[in-house]
Amino acid sequence: MTITTQATLLQEPELRPFLPLLYVAWADGDLSEAERALIQSRLSAQPWLKPRLRDALNAWLQPAEPPNAASLAQVRAAILDAVPNLSPRAKRSFVALADAMAALDGESRRVVEALEQELGFDVAALHLPSAENTSEQDARPPRFDAGALQAVLDGRLAPSRARARAFLADPKHRAMYGVPKEPYREQVFTWLLSLARAGFGALAYPGVTTDAEQGLGPFLATFETLGFGDLSLVVKFGVQFGLWGGSVYFLGTEAQRQALLPKVASLDAPGCFAMSEVGHGSNVADLETVVRWEATRKCFVLHTPGESARKDWAGNAALHAKYATVFAQLEVGGVRHGVHAFVTRIRGDDGKPLDGVRIGDCGHKLGLNGVDNGRIWFDHVELPRDALLGRYATVTENGEYQSPIESPSKRFFTMLGTLVGGRIAVASAGLSASKVGLAVALRYASTRRQFGATSEPETLLLDYPSHQRRLLPHLAATYALHFAVDEAREAFLSLKPDADTREVEAHVAGIKAAATWHATDTLQACREACGGQGYLAVNRLADARADADIFTTFEGDNTVLLQLVAKGLLTGFKQQFARGGAWSMVRFVAGQVRDAVAMTNPFTSRMSDDASLRSAEQQLAALKYRESSLLASAAQRLGKRLKGKGDPAKAFLEVQEHLLAAARAHVDTKVLSAFIAGVERASGPEHAALDRLRQLHGLCVLERHTGWFLENGAFEASRARAVRKLIPVLFEEVRPDVLSLVEAWGIPDECLAAPIAFNDPAHPRW
Amino acid sequence: MTITTQATLLQEPELRPFLPLLYVAWADGDLSEAERALIQSRLSAQPWLKPRLRDALNAWLQPAEPPNAASLAQVRAAILDAVPNLSPRAKRSFVALADAMAALDGESRRVVEALEQELGFDVAALHLPSAENTSEQDARPPRFDAGALQAVLDGRLAPSRARARAFLADPKHRAMYGVPKEPYREQVFTWLLSLARAGFGALAYPGVTTDAEQGLGPFLATFETLGFGDLSLVVKFGVQFGLWGGSVYFLGTEAQRQALLPKVASLDAPGCFAMSEVGHGSNVADLETVVRWEATRKCFVLHTPGESARKDWAGNAALHAKYATVFAQLEVGGVRHGVHAFVTRIRGDDGKPLDGVRIGDCGHKLGLNGVDNGRIWFDHVELPRDALLGRYATVTENGEYQSPIESPSKRFFTMLGTLVGGRIAVASAGLSASKVGLAVALRYASTRRQFGATSEPETLLLDYPSHQRRLLPHLAATYALHFAVDEAREAFLSLKPDADTREVEAHVAGIKAAATWHATDTLQACREACGGQGYLAVNRLADARADADIFTTFEGDNTVLLQLVAKGLLTGFKQQFARGGAWSMVRFVAGQVRDAVAMTNPFTSRMSDDASLRSAEQQLAALKYRESSLLASAAQRLGKRLKGKGDPAKAFLEVQEHLLAAARAHVDTKVLSAFIAGVERASGPEHAALDRLRQLHGLCVLERHTGWFLENGAFEASRARAVRKLIPVLFEEVRPDVLSLVEAWGIPDECLAAPIAFNDPAHPRW
Repeated sequence: MTITTQATLLQEPELRPFLPLLYVAWADGDLSEAERALIQSRLSAQPWLKPRLRDALNAWLQPAEPPNAASLAQVRAAILDAVPNLSPRAKRSFVALADAMAALDGESRRVVEALEQELGFDVAALHLPSAENTSEQDARPPRFDAGALQAVLDGRLAPSRARARAFLADPKHRAMYGVPKEPYREQVFTWLLSLARAGFGALAYPGVTTDAEQGLGPFLATFETLGFGDLSLVVKFGVQFGLWGGSVYFLGTEAQRQALLPKVASLDAPGCFAMSEVGHGSNVADLETVVRWEATRKCFVLHTPGESARKDWAGNAALHAKYATVFAQLEVGGVRHGVHAFVTRIRGDDGKPLDGVRIGDCGHKLGLNGVDNGRIWFDHVELPRDALLGRYATVTENGEYQSPIESPSKRFFTMLGTLVGGRIAVASAGLSASKVGLAVALRYASTRRQFGATSEPETLLLDYPSHQRRLLPHLAATYALHFAVDEAREAFLSLKPDADTREVEAHVAGIKAAATWHATDTLQACREACGGQGYLAVNRLADARADADIFTTFEGDNTVLLQLVAKGLLTGFKQQFARGGAWSMVRFVAGQVRDAVAMTNPFTSRMSDDASLRSAEQQLAALKYRESSLLASAAQRLGKRLKGKGDPAKAFLEVQEHLLAAARAHVDTKVLSAFIAGVERASGPEHAALDRLRQLHGLCVLERHTGWFLENGAFEASRARAVRKLIPVLFEEVRPDVLSLVEAWGIPDECLAAPIAFNDPAHPRW
Repeated sequence: MTITTQATLLQEPELRPFLPLLYVAWADGDLSEAERALIQSRLSAQPWLKPRLRDALNAWLQPAEPPNAASLAQVRAAILDAVPNLSPRAKRSFVALADAMAALDGESRRVVEALEQELGFDVAALHLPSAENTSEQDARPPRFDAGALQAVLDGRLAPSRARARAFLADPKHRAMYGVPKEPYREQVFTWLLSLARAGFGALAYPGVTTDAEQGLGPFLATFETLGFGDLSLVVKFGVQFGLWGGSVYFLGTEAQRQALLPKVASLDAPGCFAMSEVGHGSNVADLETVVRWEATRKCFVLHTPGESARKDWAGNAALHAKYATVFAQLEVGGVRHGVHAFVTRIRGDDGKPLDGVRIGDCGHKLGLNGVDNGRIWFDHVELPRDALLGRYATVTENGEYQSPIESPSKRFFTMLGTLVGGRIAVASAGLSASKVGLAVALRYASTRRQFGATSEPETLLLDYPSHQRRLLPHLAATYALHFAVDEAREAFLSLKPDADTREVEAHVAGIKAAATWHATDTLQACREACGGQGYLAVNRLADARADADIFTTFEGDNTVLLQLVAKGLLTGFKQQFARGGAWSMVRFVAGQVRDAVAMTNPFTSRMSDDASLRSAEQQLAALKYRESSLLASAAQRLGKRLKGKGDPAKAFLEVQEHLLAAARAHVDTKVLSAFIAGVERASGPEHAALDRLRQLHGLCVLERHTGWFLENGAFEASRARAVRKLIPVLFEEVRPDVLSLVEAWGIPDECLAAPIAFNDPAHPRW
């Protein structure tokens, strides 16, 4: 073939549409005589083909004279030139490729379609670019407006988030690493003071230190945003304003709130939240610390009866707290009334522990070493009568116990309700840490090359399928959880005062477990995806990983929280519960759920093609089906055991795994449905980008549970394979959006800080 | 029913065997008239039944007078009294229970069997004890001898392990935490000096500093054992004696070895291993550092041409190394010969960097802060001719390049072979860290109680199904990997000098990836399973977790190593490879594997009952089937792409996920088969204990891949369910052995150290 022929092929608009096919004809290996003849006859038969072009085609297709490597490379280059603006989907069809080479008329389109079918060539043989193309990809203009997407994500609380971002962007407030425990703790206290002075603490007490109408939204949004920065500060912020101040706010009388909260908000009254005991981490009802009413002296006496009753983990306690809210068993006139909350001083103005109060330091931890967790022992400490936080219970001067809530169990759960806000806060902070981790890892993966095809630049990490597997499902899940946390927060914020909080509690508990486990997994994946760089403190992943690790345990151990979710599912119908006792309720729910499953079943006959697998409705139906089935199975097992009048606690233990599986499935559904609703908050290209991510997220969840779907006959093998095949396609579709999706989180550069996030390994931004 | 009747039931040997059935008859709920009549007729028909006993039975079975709760409880107590010595398996059968109540004769046995079948009662309704029983369980004598099992695990290298244990048991060598970087690094160097002086370093160079015959076994066993202690020390030990000294040992001439290694072993010549560059972590072939032969001056010149070529991560470099083995592209007379290793001084005796050498500090890391990782830049540093480690290549005085290995690629891989020992070492150290983590978490779970049944002591953590799920699969996998690492080490140790190492390399690469990912997962599970306690540095899990985290990345990134495994599987047959090129080989392997799959297929028709699911042969057959299928699928895909004469690197990228899946499946098989072989090294009760664990491990692997088995028609839904149901049964069977299994690792108490491992939260053993 002459150089002229080649040039003709490349430049003539009539021939250009056929270049991909002609290229693959040779590049795919041996062009059989039959195939050659087919192409030649199809093309030569075209009436519009000028003789000059026909000759060029014939020359290209001479079996005796296959094009050499240089010719093939030139043709491929011409194709690649035309390709980059195509969607990944288009890159899989010869027709779409032909269109990109030169506008196709109806005639040529039919020829290409026919040839594609008849020849059975595979577009894959074109080796359409990953490495070369995707680096260009990142250079090309983004497909949507990251700012517009950020507005969607920030939602109604955008102004509060903006204020918190500005705080983080101040170089004085940059996260630290490698600092010894003692100066680190002091630095965190100084930052906390800045936050207090800037009015962030006051946000926690609407109606006392800020307008009642604004509610707790701005405080929670601040907390979430601070999660982009130093997590020790976030936790200290949560301990001081959320737990310590929050206990007064939620459990105190109006007088107690007015007396204490302004000082809490300004950090003039630093305090801690002394609930957990070393022997009773999650089991608050069985705390041993006791507060006894002394009728003669008309005061309370607070006492730690033994080593297992020592207060443990209390943040702020080891160094800075002057106050504590102490949870203890209240005993009045020899009668125990259950766990109640008391406020007491633990340190004097000189910072020394008061008489009868012994304070220890929990010492070094895996992370969060800027937080001074401590232990407290009380030795017959006298408390005045108004030390009891009095919203739900008081003791009169005559030693009479009074409470507006008769049921001790309801009283207990009402008091625990103070923890709900903290759980949302922890979930959202964990999510923010995940965002930082993904921002670092994805930005690094978009610049870092390693190995790759011969004689080309090394391949970008993000173009390795294994690397996409490592990170992109986490990216999608992070978006999903963003909307799920948002939904849970709004549910919490719209609770009426004194409303029954159990449903919201279960909702929040599930989201907290999901978001914090997600943070652990995501930050670990990010750490590993950055290799040795991820292990260096300077790149932020190390500390974020270590700091966020405890989120799965504190503010409620995740497994314990999932049990709460499971119980919530079983007791869904409060009235049935009240009427017939636990057993009838379980039987009722089991029956009800069985019906629901029978009704949902038909979905299994749909969902075969890619469009269904991508559909929000179908994905949600699949997850709901799984949830209902698991719940029915757990409820039936439980019902069977309770029927024998067995100990309910034992019965719950025996079906624990089933209950936890049902709870997890419920949370999966919740998260996907929140994502689906969230996508609708955006429009245009932002909507499209979010929807691609939602598709990916849904598919990843389906894939994770493929075994279950297969085992329960909801999937056939072909559907399982279809899910698995579609995921890499979604990776490719999401791939060009990655950096914009990261940008939309609005993480200040000062928080990213990691040199590898700025393609600048030599120059830390710290 | 009178008290006399009840007493008769409880004491008469003729009636006692029926107590479990009689108890369940009522405890399971409503005894139907038909059921009652059936029991009564079956029992009353017994010729041996005295009238007095028949009356007692009839009284118990009066439908109008069901026994009250107190009677039921008394019967249950009598059953429990007789039960504790039964195996968990026996606790699931009424016949075995009957046997435990009083010796059964043939007649009564037939009656119980018949009733069990006819009634379909469920033993589970007995609520056979978990909580009460298992706390007693731990107090009862162990079922096997932990010392005997330790002898099996320690194997032929027991003496070396014992010496290393003695080192660790010395209070001076206890792991540290919470120490700032600088003093920590100095402490680790001091420990390293103690190791060197005690002769542990000399173990690394058989034939030079120790007897040739003993081989590297004692060195590797020492490394593994040191993994119970401070992991910074382990890594520093590996860098000094394994990497730095090892490069001289494996790549140096006899003269170079004799000159350097005695000083390396005594730590008079501390050094580092400068291979990785910041731009080329895993891609050693593309390193940029260059060494040029200067013909006129008859010397080499070592140079760092740009920032991406800076040497990075080198342990020992930031502070202590005076020497370095530097890997660089060798250029002689304008010709590049690929990567070679050179020895050079980097610091003078005064500890200051030499002229032309710039050294930086990698700074704080997630863990291992006792290791001084550094960066090195070289500015035209002159090296003498014998700086080139000369076993595989030399440059003559006349500037002539000579090598006994002609193929540059073979030469390169031969030099990389020096890393194989290090990978075994890292795998085994990761495994030791897992053992420490599990020892802490399992000992804690065996003493810590939380929540539980009403009016009983709170339930032990280890008796929660969710807690067993968290920890016991890791326990089983740790044992599996112990034997797998052992097997890989022996394969490495029995390599003949200059033998083709590729097969062993692939073997070791797979085990290293499996063991280090396992360490990360296990330590995380242990951390979470200990809740807040696990987050405290004093309990050791935090640092072990953070330190071991990098093991998945260093000495070969795990994903890259799995690709090596995959390539090893494809190139399994070296000769085919040599003859027909990569493509024919792939086609050959694909064909061969397809046949293997067809042959293996029949296993799917067996493996239905529990006995098959527990069988070593069947478990292994299932994993082999999976491996072959995945390999065949990957090879076919690859072959298809290579047929089109595509770029092999791109083809590999496109099928990367399939290749990785095949590699993982291969490693699963390797590990299980090593475990099966390992079980056979024990006998008697130790053999039985190991076999229970092996059953559990195999089932957990099958369960993890249930989706695949279902999708590929190897499992039906019923088999998947059978696997899932059998796992908790195995948990129960393994449960009584847990503490002895932990003890058999022989971890010195000084290494456990964690207060929670000694049921003593108040008193650290540090």
